[in-house]
Amino acid sequence: MGAATAIDWRALEQQLRAFLPAKAVVSKAQELLSYNCDGLTMERHQPPLAVLPESTADVAAILKLCQQLGVPFVARGSGTGLSGGALVEQPALLVITSRMRQVLSVDLANQRITVQPGVINSWVTRAVSGDGFYFAPDPSSQVACSVGGNVAENSGGVHCLKYGVTSNHVLELEVVLPDGTITTLGGPLAEMPGLDLRGVFIGSEGTLGIATSITLRILRQPEAVAVLLADFGSMEAAGEAVRAVTAAGLLPAGMEIMDNFTIRAVDSMLDQELYPVDAAAALLIELDGSGPEVEIAMQLCDGLCRQAGARQVQKATSAEDRARLWLGRKSAISALGRLYPNYYLQDGVVPRSSLPMVLAAIDQLSQKHQLPVANVFHAGDGNLHPLILYNGAELGVKDRVKALGAAILRLCVDVGGSISGEHGVGSDKRCFLDWMFDAADLETMQLVRKAFDPEQRANPGKLFPTPVGCAEAHRRSQHLELPPEVVVI
Amino acid sequence: MGAATAIDWRALEQQLRAFLPAKAVVSKAQELLSYNCDGLTMERHQPPLAVLPESTADVAAILKLCQQLGVPFVARGSGTGLSGGALVEQPALLVITSRMRQVLSVDLANQRITVQPGVINSWVTRAVSGDGFYFAPDPSSQVACSVGGNVAENSGGVHCLKYGVTSNHVLELEVVLPDGTITTLGGPLAEMPGLDLRGVFIGSEGTLGIATSITLRILRQPEAVAVLLADFGSMEAAGEAVRAVTAAGLLPAGMEIMDNFTIRAVDSMLDQELYPVDAAAALLIELDGSGPEVEIAMQLCDGLCRQAGARQVQKATSAEDRARLWLGRKSAISALGRLYPNYYLQDGVVPRSSLPMVLAAIDQLSQKHQLPVANVFHAGDGNLHPLILYNGAELGVKDRVKALGAAILRLCVDVGGSISGEHGVGSDKRCFLDWMFDAADLETMQLVRKAFDPEQRANPGKLFPTPVGCAEAHRRSQHLELPPEVVVI
Repeated sequence: MGAATAIDWRALEQQLRAFLPAKAVVSKAQELLSYNCDGLTMERHQPPLAVLPESTADVAAILKLCQQLGVPFVARGSGTGLSGGALVEQPALLVITSRMRQVLSVDLANQRITVQPGVINSWVTRAVSGDGFYFAPDPSSQVACSVGGNVAENSGGVHCLKYGVTSNHVLELEVVLPDGTITTLGGPLAEMPGLDLRGVFIGSEGTLGIATSITLRILRQPEAVAVLLADFGSMEAAGEAVRAVTAAGLLPAGMEIMDNFTIRAVDSMLDQELYPVDAAAALLIELDGSGPEVEIAMQLCDGLCRQAGARQVQKATSAEDRARLWLGRKSAISALGRLYPNYYLQDGVVPRSSLPMVLAAIDQLSQKHQLPVANVFHAGDGNLHPLILYNGAELGVKDRVKALGAAILRLCVDVGGSISGEHGVGSDKRCFLDWMFDAADLETMQLVRKAFDPEQRANPGKLFPTPVGCAEAHRRSQHLELPPEVVVI
Repeated sequence: MGAATAIDWRALEQQLRAFLPAKAVVSKAQELLSYNCDGLTMERHQPPLAVLPESTADVAAILKLCQQLGVPFVARGSGTGLSGGALVEQPALLVITSRMRQVLSVDLANQRITVQPGVINSWVTRAVSGDGFYFAPDPSSQVACSVGGNVAENSGGVHCLKYGVTSNHVLELEVVLPDGTITTLGGPLAEMPGLDLRGVFIGSEGTLGIATSITLRILRQPEAVAVLLADFGSMEAAGEAVRAVTAAGLLPAGMEIMDNFTIRAVDSMLDQELYPVDAAAALLIELDGSGPEVEIAMQLCDGLCRQAGARQVQKATSAEDRARLWLGRKSAISALGRLYPNYYLQDGVVPRSSLPMVLAAIDQLSQKHQLPVANVFHAGDGNLHPLILYNGAELGVKDRVKALGAAILRLCVDVGGSISGEHGVGSDKRCFLDWMFDAADLETMQLVRKAFDPEQRANPGKLFPTPVGCAEAHRRSQHLELPPEVVVI
């Protein structure tokens, strides 16, 4: 990346202005300030220059110019990512897709829609809901995050338990490679012959190129939807309910758990006892399908929750009642965010069978590190979202927060889990990727990355561990003390 | 591949025998005869030498030796593949996984099983069925085909309509790369961070390395299963029934159609009128789920089939009755195979909406080329299996059969479909891959391939078009005359 240090940003700006309209090139410091961080607000870096293309041709011309001048680039959608994937840490051109917001085509007969990458996640459903269809992946940020960002991070959401993550819903990608070549990955059908480069691009976090047109699978709206809210006197009982529902062969659209910390924060913000304030855990189950099927599953879930020790089970089928039960979960992060000036949201995954043990261990880690941790999680697939709360003004607190975050992720990996379920690795967790993959595995990934981007100019420094930058993180992780009762399987 | 022509097979054999037991190295011509073709019986090539490793260490040692000596290799599972993927067309060592047949571990709590690649598809379900689980992908050859072969071809099956193909059911792969390095792709969880190399390996048809350990997702057996068999006076009516079932928001486990030709062949072989001999199409629908859910869906499907014009609808819920309705479909290929000495099975995919039009066009192509074509297909996902029947002893017939096969696949691609749904490209369809991908797309695939296999020694010549070898096929395809009524969309 030696070339990057010698970039003449003024000259690049002029060359970009030669073929892009004035408003498409952002070079003023105060305007660039808007792009100095993404959803990982802990880290901030101001980009030297940004562009806002409107078309595939724009993106191809921009990347061709970058190739000629040896300039690295970082793609950014709506900037809602939680792992720092859109941070411009090294000198690089920021390519923002927020003006690429056209729905290009809709094919209801074959349940497909093609959009530009800047289209907002919830707009996809809006474009087809009148015809009875919807787009399944639903990240919490769905009213703000872009489809391009969803592809980069392979985003999940509440409904991914039943319907799978973004990768299961993307058919075809038009991609501009780092040298400016336009290529197509995947195709109009669910299964295409040849190497599945569509799959390798999805979740590559901007390290392989920029998607400029995305064909998504849309699903028929279910005939009926029901929501159950059950509260429990212990987290173990809530975990047992999740286990029992799964063991009964039921596949809810989503199963979400909030811990007592979160429950209290939500009730306090909403100023009502939406969830019983003394509950150790609140479990939300959403069921969808045909009317009778949902009715039967709802009765079954009710019984299984009560058997597992649920104290109350509320049920809702109308849209209004369902929204009321969901309200607390949907506002959980903002409710917790009110309690402290800052938060650091983790995204670990553990095998479902080790959920109760891991939650107990996180509680102990929280006490040891003297930092409060709230837990909100996708219980059905073991995807935890521990939220570490802190005051950024406190001296040295960021290091302590990061150490606790690393300890939680180490715990997840030690029980056979993962450092990321749906938020990506980005800059935040790159030093932990080698907890999950050995040198040979990472080398194979790097070789594939170089097939797309031989000069590694696409989102430089992200996703993969760097030997120098990660030395400190590794040193810390070696000294990590797991609670003795954590059984490593 | 210049090195390949200079291979000293005798020396290679000696070096292999130095670390492998005697029975693991096959060098006698009469023994090698068993491996001169796979399920694509039209082409035959005898390999110069074959090995039967038993462990990952064996495979790694074999590929390391191949690397040192510059020897290409072809991996083979059970040899049931239908696209010639396991053919040894160029001088190469055949690596057969049929002695790697151990189930390595079962983790019911997390619904995972790890097997060696030679394990037979149906053995996976057998290993976990006592505990109420099963493995969803079910190719027709499931009592013979290997899991390693399923991974190579990304195999499908009847139940893939609801449950997805092999790629949706593989979590982790231990892979030996062409240089003998052992690496891990994917991981124990459904979603892993980093580049999805698991996905790119699955369906790569042996061109990236050899999988030596495969961790599969297992599903809970459904509480209830029902089968409907409906027969129709026209193929259009059967197609309308499939459309109506889908439009009602139902997702059957499978939807299969047989045409009149197939119906007659089946009835004749079974010597009973299992399906009405004058039916233009027989539609099989399998439903699974909870008892009441299946009951409701079955009544709904019954009504929709009758509305679409079904003449009779038979229903079955007991295992015995279901097997009776399935019998004809399961024996369709062998029933058709009895009528002529040879057959050539195609595997095209078309958008579901164009199914009736494509079937009419295939009928016209069959008449024009004067070769009978039977149609059996996965109607729910538009995956056609046209079976061209011929007598291999007839002079010049193979060229005519291939020309008709190419015409059918060209038709599929022209309506926005694919040359392969689940059988792979292999040697049989490599010249048609560029109907679906342009030069830039194929170049990106080749770059990724070279990241795994820089010398292209893994399954040489397969999957990708070769400029010289495909010239003739392309010349033929340019002269293809589509029936005028085929609307190209």
